[in-house]
Amino acid sequence: MAETIEVVPLGKALRLLNHGPTTLVSAAHGGRGNVMAAAWVMPLDFEPPKVLAVIAGGTFTRGLIEASGEFALNLPPVAMRDAVMAVGSASGHEVPDKFARFDLRTFPSEKIGALLVEGCVGWLECRVIREERNEREYDLFIAEVVAARADTRVFRDGRWCFEEAPDELRTLHHVAGGNFFATGKSVRVGA
Amino acid sequence: MAETIEVVPLGKALRLLNHGPTTLVSAAHGGRGNVMAAAWVMPLDFEPPKVLAVIAGGTFTRGLIEASGEFALNLPPVAMRDAVMAVGSASGHEVPDKFARFDLRTFPSEKIGALLVEGCVGWLECRVIREERNEREYDLFIAEVVAARADTRVFRDGRWCFEEAPDELRTLHHVAGGNFFATGKSVRVGA
Repeated sequence: MAETIEVVPLGKALRLLNHGPTTLVSAAHGGRGNVMAAAWVMPLDFEPPKVLAVIAGGTFTRGLIEASGEFALNLPPVAMRDAVMAVGSASGHEVPDKFARFDLRTFPSEKIGALLVEGCVGWLECRVIREERNEREYDLFIAEVVAARADTRVFRDGRWCFEEAPDELRTLHHVAGGNFFATGKSVRVGA
Repeated sequence: MAETIEVVPLGKALRLLNHGPTTLVSAAHGGRGNVMAAAWVMPLDFEPPKVLAVIAGGTFTRGLIEASGEFALNLPPVAMRDAVMAVGSASGHEVPDKFARFDLRTFPSEKIGALLVEGCVGWLECRVIREERNEREYDLFIAEVVAARADTRVFRDGRWCFEEAPDELRTLHHVAGGNFFATGKSVRVGA
């Protein structure tokens, strides 16, 4: 785990997600772990912090989430774009260990069982609030954020500070297929 | 309505939202219209296209959405950052006509009653799929996209093309308070 990683207070955890970055979702259960790409993830509520994630039925990660009631959201930067595409294209049903297959190093969560992906710049550990109708009808999961960390090179004092770091550390926004946007310039109201 | 606005086929409508831009939500009912800012909006499903939107209880727009079962998502560009902040800070309970108060020109929707905001670069017209528990417990609305349009200066053939237009036409990603990021550079896998 990089020395630049620090805990993000739960009151600031949603700042990691507010601008709409794409995520890697990791989960674990019964000795198996997996990771997939998910762009449809966003905050739901501040206190306690909650998130929404659309997790397609039939994915291996979905099964791990349903069994464990937990998942982690990892925020990959531009430098990891190829890995995002790779884990998003392969299924844990066919690749027994996607972490190993795609050379993804991991480190432990603080509060949940899922592994966190090294090289990402933010991490949210989440416990599912079961809403069976949403899960069944819409592949939609609601979860409470129970721990968060970020890479202080780009997130400090509760805010992203991409301007002071290499562009390779900016977060990604998914467009379609292998196309993303990097998070761009800061824009302030009245400026 | 600007001459550069064209219909986006429903099969491509979610491309407008996939990268996580902030939105202006407009709604109308019984002769009253209103507009508010909402950052917590994302796609939910492709076929038919559906979206999720978190619309806080007590907002005037929420009442209009509940009464009409409809809302529009307008995607403001960098050039409209001050207007986004203004409509996000004032309430329709106190300002009878936010469009007039903040000099926002509008044009009609195709399929719903809400007005669309000129100067935005994408518009999705949505009909609510009533899920009362989500609305009550989580301020969460599910809706089907029934029509979409975009400004062809920045969205053509089903994809954003910000590189060829002024930076003022890039979409916004909300951080907190009056801080946003502009949508940044294109990033392609394998490049």
